[in-house]
Amino acid sequence: MSEHAYVREVGLRDGLQSIAEILPTEDKIAWLDAEHAAGVREIEVSSFVPPKLLPQLADAEAVVRHALSLPELTVSALIPNLKGAERGLALGVHEMNFVLSVSDGHNRANVRRSTEESVEDFRRVVALCHTAPAERRPRVACGLATAFGCTIEGAVDEDRVCRIAGEVAEAGADAIILADTVGYGQPAAVERVFRRVIAEVAPLPVAGHFHDTRGLGLANVLAALNAGARAFYASLGGLGCCPYAPGATGNIVTEDLAFMLEAMGFETGIDIDRLVKVREFVHGILPNIAQHGAIAKAGLPKNFHSAPIAQAAE
Amino acid sequence: MSEHAYVREVGLRDGLQSIAEILPTEDKIAWLDAEHAAGVREIEVSSFVPPKLLPQLADAEAVVRHALSLPELTVSALIPNLKGAERGLALGVHEMNFVLSVSDGHNRANVRRSTEESVEDFRRVVALCHTAPAERRPRVACGLATAFGCTIEGAVDEDRVCRIAGEVAEAGADAIILADTVGYGQPAAVERVFRRVIAEVAPLPVAGHFHDTRGLGLANVLAALNAGARAFYASLGGLGCCPYAPGATGNIVTEDLAFMLEAMGFETGIDIDRLVKVREFVHGILPNIAQHGAIAKAGLPKNFHSAPIAQAAE
Repeated sequence: MSEHAYVREVGLRDGLQSIAEILPTEDKIAWLDAEHAAGVREIEVSSFVPPKLLPQLADAEAVVRHALSLPELTVSALIPNLKGAERGLALGVHEMNFVLSVSDGHNRANVRRSTEESVEDFRRVVALCHTAPAERRPRVACGLATAFGCTIEGAVDEDRVCRIAGEVAEAGADAIILADTVGYGQPAAVERVFRRVIAEVAPLPVAGHFHDTRGLGLANVLAALNAGARAFYASLGGLGCCPYAPGATGNIVTEDLAFMLEAMGFETGIDIDRLVKVREFVHGILPNIAQHGAIAKAGLPKNFHSAPIAQAAE
Repeated sequence: MSEHAYVREVGLRDGLQSIAEILPTEDKIAWLDAEHAAGVREIEVSSFVPPKLLPQLADAEAVVRHALSLPELTVSALIPNLKGAERGLALGVHEMNFVLSVSDGHNRANVRRSTEESVEDFRRVVALCHTAPAERRPRVACGLATAFGCTIEGAVDEDRVCRIAGEVAEAGADAIILADTVGYGQPAAVERVFRRVIAEVAPLPVAGHFHDTRGLGLANVLAALNAGARAFYASLGGLGCCPYAPGATGNIVTEDLAFMLEAMGFETGIDIDRLVKVREFVHGILPNIAQHGAIAKAGLPKNFHSAPIAQAAE
């Protein structure tokens, strides 16, 4: 029996908000449907930010409504604040993803408040969600951005990451996401911080959202796996460039992540060949956006899903 | 005190033999000098194959002779057979790298003999090297190609990898290299096989030569590190495409490997910014060859070489 590992697609949110083009709603829905058909069962479908700030995601309601009609799909949305949480709650999303930065400087640059003030905002989001009847109550996840370093502050204190994770857990989070927002993470730090945070917030799940800006994305996933994490965020073709490193890769690539996990013996539910074909569709609707990733070029190896011969022979 | 990790550049051998262009000897020497100046202290500088078969490396003697003049550089060369070993021995290379494939089908396709026959060839190479006076005797390493899968045979028996590693150690190898020749390796298998082989051949060092064909190159390095390996082969800019996967990456990228190791706290002796500049020189002499890798695009992060703040504060 294989152990399950969770792959969450964030291309429709994190990817689309990073490019200038505004996709028609029907293209987003077709993309969603294609990933769902390839076996992806967790998708962050949009963000409840004011449409003026992110016109690329102004159709969040329509996209979420369609996503909620797909069987067995966990529909999550990013919520930047209480107003966004109200929108998500009204629609009935399964999970809300609130984000704050561990780096105070990064948090202030993003939302003009201290990290501690954002923790208070998160408390209010949890309180709002708890007003919903139990059967309609969404899970509330909290992403800790810049958990492995910050372009403004440089190194980020590991004790501080643990302390804020603890505060967020105490505030009522259902899950924690440690995010390497700017691609500063390296495997030794990732394994160390994941071990500490997992111990701090147990039994809450702790997911990893890594960027491949410096080529270490999948090595960081492996480090987090070794620490016990079993849920990872990624985007198809690596959509979502890093604004601080022009030309560099942003999110790790969903299909490469699924390949690594499946090759290692984890069960993701994803049909990788089928997922690779979704890239062609996305290339058709976003022809000017570069796609990253290796498995789409190289194809699955001949030893894929072979049990180790040494064990099979015994 | 940091632990040392060894980075061996193979672009001048593995990289150059995979492309049609024939570099002038002076360009190779300038490339060698530039990597040496960036702190690289292990370079596989050429291959003693018949010049008719690989005209790209016909100047092996001249390149090796120059390399031997560089201070503190470990000069290795690939030797395909006893004749090649004689050439290497005459020149005084520090290390000879003999290669055989664990996959019998792959070995037959490459050198028209069985893996076991190649193990016998390796014994003759060791015997030849032992005729040299002790102070001039080169180390003899044996690379086990297709150790993690084969394009011809698919899965490769892990018991067989261990058995052949043991035979090669018993034959007198000074080091073993486990090579993922076709980019089929995945971290769970890599860690498992490295642990077994390291236990089998102790106290011989076991190095890793990974390809990034399917994006798992650095994750596989991390898996081998976790198993205890401390030496890795790579090529600048990932030079050396995989002939079985057109357009795909071959060798892992030296500068990205060095970045990961240094960021994790290992000491490699390499100045990464300086090594990244060597790419520009190589691009100048090989303008039509694509360069891979992330750190050259993204630059070193601001938290590079910061001690973990949690520990520093204590």
